[in-house]
Amino acid sequence: MALQLDDGTPVATPSLVVDEAVLDRNLADVARTAAAAGLALRPHVKTHKSLEIARRQRAVGATGITVATLGEAEVFAGAGFDDVFVAYPLWLDGVRARRLVALAERARMRVGVGSLDGARQLLAGVGARPGLSALIEVDSGHHRSGVAPEHAGEVAAALADGGVAVAGVFTFPGHSYAPDGGPAAAADESAALSAAAQALAAAGVDAPVRSGGSTPSLASSDPGTLTEVRPGVYALGDAQQWELGATAPERIALTVLATVVARYPDRLVTDAGSKVLGADRPAWATGFGRLLDHPEARIVALSEHHSTVVGVDAPAGSTLRVVPNHVCNAVNLVDALVVVRAGGGVTTWPVDARGRNQ
Amino acid sequence: MALQLDDGTPVATPSLVVDEAVLDRNLADVARTAAAAGLALRPHVKTHKSLEIARRQRAVGATGITVATLGEAEVFAGAGFDDVFVAYPLWLDGVRARRLVALAERARMRVGVGSLDGARQLLAGVGARPGLSALIEVDSGHHRSGVAPEHAGEVAAALADGGVAVAGVFTFPGHSYAPDGGPAAAADESAALSAAAQALAAAGVDAPVRSGGSTPSLASSDPGTLTEVRPGVYALGDAQQWELGATAPERIALTVLATVVARYPDRLVTDAGSKVLGADRPAWATGFGRLLDHPEARIVALSEHHSTVVGVDAPAGSTLRVVPNHVCNAVNLVDALVVVRAGGGVTTWPVDARGRNQ
Repeated sequence: MALQLDDGTPVATPSLVVDEAVLDRNLADVARTAAAAGLALRPHVKTHKSLEIARRQRAVGATGITVATLGEAEVFAGAGFDDVFVAYPLWLDGVRARRLVALAERARMRVGVGSLDGARQLLAGVGARPGLSALIEVDSGHHRSGVAPEHAGEVAAALADGGVAVAGVFTFPGHSYAPDGGPAAAADESAALSAAAQALAAAGVDAPVRSGGSTPSLASSDPGTLTEVRPGVYALGDAQQWELGATAPERIALTVLATVVARYPDRLVTDAGSKVLGADRPAWATGFGRLLDHPEARIVALSEHHSTVVGVDAPAGSTLRVVPNHVCNAVNLVDALVVVRAGGGVTTWPVDARGRNQ
Repeated sequence: MALQLDDGTPVATPSLVVDEAVLDRNLADVARTAAAAGLALRPHVKTHKSLEIARRQRAVGATGITVATLGEAEVFAGAGFDDVFVAYPLWLDGVRARRLVALAERARMRVGVGSLDGARQLLAGVGARPGLSALIEVDSGHHRSGVAPEHAGEVAAALADGGVAVAGVFTFPGHSYAPDGGPAAAADESAALSAAAQALAAAGVDAPVRSGGSTPSLASSDPGTLTEVRPGVYALGDAQQWELGATAPERIALTVLATVVARYPDRLVTDAGSKVLGADRPAWATGFGRLLDHPEARIVALSEHHSTVVGVDAPAGSTLRVVPNHVCNAVNLVDALVVVRAGGGVTTWPVDARGRNQ
């Protein structure tokens, strides 16, 4: 199957290809589920870095967006997204502080604060601003960033004493990324956010938002505690979600179109390597990605421009659809996504915020 | 230490920072060693994707360059590099064939052929061209692409019978990427290239080039068999090379400048995550990268915008120099390198071939 753009240009390999129909179904389904549970949906756009996809998320009901960096915030706020949460413990000195001030003049900005140090730096570097509020990050078991729930009150109080608006608390239950980890991580998430909200109340800080959510834990999110969820990967899907059971293969909207460049008796070699798939490989993964149309196959080795595939045969020169392990890192490796439209035809969408790490 | 560009702009974090003095020393030393051994040096520019660095490699004696993709070849040939080896088993159909034909009109092009299928496709898609020659890829123990040495003759003969110039044989001894793997991989490389060259001679194909070389095996390259080496990482160094003992830390020319965004009792969190370091983590690595100035520290977890560091303390807001595990993938994540010049001052160099996967 030779994939061609509408103008007749053949799609070269390796390319990241999005199935619009699957994407739109994913966006609509999660929006519907969140609405039914009474949860605000604030998708993490670091997954796709695409204005087009974010607009579709907004169209089906997202109340705002989540980003990881000021650079991503600038791209999306610059395109009219007016409610942006930087769910990251930013260190707000110098240029970063000035960039946040400028952002808060054009969009309603929320920023993460993950420590007392971070709160003091926000106060020193930025201070109280109209349009700016803080969410206190709590550690719900992933042990990356955030304070213990019982310490959330003192961080919030430090900000509030300095006049900075505190909107609530948030966590990323990243320990959901383990086999059968979703429900337990969601329970931890609920407990941590609940305890943190109580700590804020005890410190005299009245703040309504309790924000959580990761794609593997999403189905188990506790609407009795959470007020909002911030999933990202659900839009496109990836092999991690497939292997965790969080996404069925027919819900995977993004694959890497790859050419079989060589066929040996025991293996195939394709041109989709780590420079287009990313090199993520959690310990529990069965390989460096999967083949969407050959679930029995395994990618047993990965170089920058080679993936070594066993368990399937295909002629040299044929194409395969490879599912990256971690779609967020794969998208960040290309300037544009090839999009197979639901109504027919093939177009491209830019990866507007590619490389905006700062 | 606040790093600033010459125009006074502070260098934001995370940024990839190159130490020009270390880089130039690496380039000169390997060029000198190769020359002393009588080996042609054809550096793999996929490591840095930088015209500036490739020009420096040429200035100290590189006889040509190695690339992995036609896209990289187009960037470098377009900038005047006139001897380019695509060390990859290209599948030369359609647009790819036409691109190679166009390249061969402006530069002396060598391409890899890793199977009889690939040879037949080259004959069908491109055929004999002035300025184009093929190198037969042999598997020396990495078991990725390439034919067994004893089959190199039939692949070469198929090409030669079709009028395509065969320049020789090549291999990538990638199994050198293991603790103490360099010398054994270099011995395998020598044996495989020698056997392949004999197979070509037996098939009546007279071809002088025997090309090998990876950075970990470089010091053990056999000048009795090899005619040329193609190391890449040696220019910049990385944590893999450091941990393999192939590069001393003072020879590491590229680090990621990162900010400590949060400090907890048991760990630091920096803003250098997998979207700037890459996610490579071989089984034998001690973590997801290293800290150049704190060899005792370990990066125990990596998210897209967080690295979790233990074994060192530093204040929140301070900066650390993080060494990526695999520099080739790190460089490909940014549009420009920040360069601390040997003579003082700080500038930037573009990553000219970033993202050129096709």
